[in-house]
Amino acid sequence: MHSSLQKWSAEFIGTFWLTFGGCGSAVLAAAFPQVGIGLLGVSLAFGLTVLTGAYALGPISGGHFNPAVSIGLAVGGRFKASELPGYIVAQVLGAIVAGGVLYLIATGKPGAEIGGFATNGYGTHSPGGYGLMAALLAEVVLTAVFLVVILGATAPAAAPGFGGLAIGLCLTLIHLISIPVTNTSVNPARSTGVAVFGPEIALSQLWVFWAAPIVGAAIGALVYRGLLSNGRNG
Amino acid sequence: MHSSLQKWSAEFIGTFWLTFGGCGSAVLAAAFPQVGIGLLGVSLAFGLTVLTGAYALGPISGGHFNPAVSIGLAVGGRFKASELPGYIVAQVLGAIVAGGVLYLIATGKPGAEIGGFATNGYGTHSPGGYGLMAALLAEVVLTAVFLVVILGATAPAAAPGFGGLAIGLCLTLIHLISIPVTNTSVNPARSTGVAVFGPEIALSQLWVFWAAPIVGAAIGALVYRGLLSNGRNG
Amino acid sequence: MHSSLQKWSAEFIGTFWLTFGGCGSAVLAAAFPQVGIGLLGVSLAFGLTVLTGAYALGPISGGHFNPAVSIGLAVGGRFKASELPGYIVAQVLGAIVAGGVLYLIATGKPGAEIGGFATNGYGTHSPGGYGLMAALLAEVVLTAVFLVVILGATAPAAAPGFGGLAIGLCLTLIHLISIPVTNTSVNPARSTGVAVFGPEIALSQLWVFWAAPIVGAAIGALVYRGLLSNGRNG
Amino acid sequence: MHSSLQKWSAEFIGTFWLTFGGCGSAVLAAAFPQVGIGLLGVSLAFGLTVLTGAYALGPISGGHFNPAVSIGLAVGGRFKASELPGYIVAQVLGAIVAGGVLYLIATGKPGAEIGGFATNGYGTHSPGGYGLMAALLAEVVLTAVFLVVILGATAPAAAPGFGGLAIGLCLTLIHLISIPVTNTSVNPARSTGVAVFGPEIALSQLWVFWAAPIVGAAIGALVYRGLLSNGRNG
Repeated sequence: MHSSLQKWSAEFIGTFWLTFGGCGSAVLAAAFPQVGIGLLGVSLAFGLTVLTGAYALGPISGGHFNPAVSIGLAVGGRFKASELPGYIVAQVLGAIVAGGVLYLIATGKPGAEIGGFATNGYGTHSPGGYGLMAALLAEVVLTAVFLVVILGATAPAAAPGFGGLAIGLCLTLIHLISIPVTNTSVNPARSTGVAVFGPEIALSQLWVFWAAPIVGAAIGALVYRGLLSNGRNG
Repeated sequence: MHSSLQKWSAEFIGTFWLTFGGCGSAVLAAAFPQVGIGLLGVSLAFGLTVLTGAYALGPISGGHFNPAVSIGLAVGGRFKASELPGYIVAQVLGAIVAGGVLYLIATGKPGAEIGGFATNGYGTHSPGGYGLMAALLAEVVLTAVFLVVILGATAPAAAPGFGGLAIGLCLTLIHLISIPVTNTSVNPARSTGVAVFGPEIALSQLWVFWAAPIVGAAIGALVYRGLLSNGRNG
Repeated sequence: MHSSLQKWSAEFIGTFWLTFGGCGSAVLAAAFPQVGIGLLGVSLAFGLTVLTGAYALGPISGGHFNPAVSIGLAVGGRFKASELPGYIVAQVLGAIVAGGVLYLIATGKPGAEIGGFATNGYGTHSPGGYGLMAALLAEVVLTAVFLVVILGATAPAAAPGFGGLAIGLCLTLIHLISIPVTNTSVNPARSTGVAVFGPEIALSQLWVFWAAPIVGAAIGALVYRGLLSNGRNG
Repeated sequence: MHSSLQKWSAEFIGTFWLTFGGCGSAVLAAAFPQVGIGLLGVSLAFGLTVLTGAYALGPISGGHFNPAVSIGLAVGGRFKASELPGYIVAQVLGAIVAGGVLYLIATGKPGAEIGGFATNGYGTHSPGGYGLMAALLAEVVLTAVFLVVILGATAPAAAPGFGGLAIGLCLTLIHLISIPVTNTSVNPARSTGVAVFGPEIALSQLWVFWAAPIVGAAIGALVYRGLLSNGRNG
């Protein structure tokens, strides 16, 4: 058993890593001239933050790194609701520190411009100009399936050890689909961590990237419990 | 043991995910200006839908997500033929719902154009202009090897747990080879799900993407049973 | 225990897959306009042919799919030299059939041109214009390390089940380094399978892609046995 | 138990592979016309050198391939400090031999130019023009998290066998973020191996890529021990 402090530390570090690594790859490397990593590289980076965090920190805290995931796991009966506040605070703090460190690095060269700073958005702040309805639909559906994958890949009947691989690469897949729509959130902490340092519009739209992922996560957890699960935690 | 409803739900959700994720990445992100994910990103996305679905839903339904795979598994002696109708209906419905949700998102911006909507085709509807014979040959051969990989990687002698990884990444590989030829089907449900919402030519050519994958899957299963298998389900 | 026919069938199919998948991705998809998979996609494809083949067919034949690997394993004491002829014949036949099927598909459109047909070469036939010495050095060094990885990742002390992952992705890595130098062989069967259908110069340079990989494989196996192995098959 | 000679040989070969493979992909393939692998391919290559090396050589030496990792593991209580000198000498020698072999291949064509030769740098020698503070911050933070991942993914409670996957892909992730900043080191041996053959400025800045990764590794190990670990080696 790990102490609450150890769990919060793991969630802080893991969400720091998710935000710093995923958004860092987007801000620093996505559009590098000629050889930039593009949206594919950013998608891979987000997924690998979770994959690496899950194997390294999962045994300590469960490896959520995402308030919507914590809430979905509580809805799905895999996580105590009483632990939500501590986890969510740790996640949001980790993400904000990540945003700050990334800001320091990104501005650490002559003539630096941070642009959108990897913030999420819809309408004029959507990378591809998608509207609010498309943004909500995408974020809800993707977070719902994300929770189905998380609950299924860590169920007692699942192949032992492969959860971190499946869940991390699921986040890669989610980004491969939806960066053009909302810049992909499915994670309110990640959205908050960069919105604090990004353009003003990001903060004004931030509510969407709390509401939609949480609603989606709850739907995914309910679908899993209602249609797929076979008894106790299954 | 899972109920039929649970199995059908798993196949519905898994085929939804395959079609929404794979075709979604193609429609929304493949050709995004400057930083688009390209055919490599689309290939990865298709494979990751199966990888994630296999680990999350495989313990429930076996994780087929594809009528050709279900038929091939029946030919290979790993799946009861009596379960085929229920599975195939669930798969096709999941794919069509995916096509619909993707349509809503893709058209959720001013001036949206869905183009080919990730449908499969040959001749003038082949991405690279390949003719019917090349299309048939590619789809038959690729689905045949796909079944060999599926049957081999889930055989009793195979490394436990790695089946989802090998099978998912096999679908990535199949796409890396053949998107220019047919936009890659090897899956009649996926083809149907987007053909319903895509350009007319896609529906008129849809029979190819039922016939070729099913023939290929049967050939692959027969090759595996005849040349490679070592007794009971091996 | 599997029969010789089963082993040869597995090696035939696996080397077919390696050559069809790897070279197919190069011929059909690498340079597709705007969204082509590039050398990165080709590298991934080659690796995934081995990864998928290893999990599916490895339990049957050991999953060599490469005469240099079979020879290296014999030098390393993991494979009976008396089995080499049957394996190598099966591998070369599988690769040639792959070259033929790929030729049929690649020419199955109006105005098709097969270009270099994914053949290996040096000097004027090197993708980047590298000379014979650079080609020999690259092929020998890369095949040597490939054998170290193969022998190490399948040693008794290695993590069970992960061999196919490590070995497949090692082939991806090898291609990421050296496609510009020789178009990457490290596999005489793969080189032969496309040289038969490719430009004349490929056949005239083919000896290099038999000699260098075999020498490299032997060196790698000797290094592993001499410096790294800890007793019996270790 | 393996002898010191076997361990040093494994570290020599593994660090050779890391430097030859990672820097080789950068020098030879990253900017290949039209179809180059870009920073994404280079990031994948670096990660796969560690992934393959970890599965193949990890059972022999632990698979460090990096002086900062060896030092961090010593600080974290997982490695005897008395073994540091032998390991670090083997690592640096392996990296320098890799730099030399790569130099021979890269210059093995008419009109070859080695450019930056994949060396690390800041200021005018940073790929994106980032200054010393940004370089130090990035290298320290990334190496610190790298050590957290290494210590966590190989802890007794971690999923058995997945360490090599998580650690290798963590190095890929680190490169996806930071190649534009410093060309990514987090590994003094890798930096030294190419600096010896690269432009003069690389040698003059080399101290940064010894100091920052070692400081970062020590911080990561201390964080892991202090905040996350649960008793003995946990």
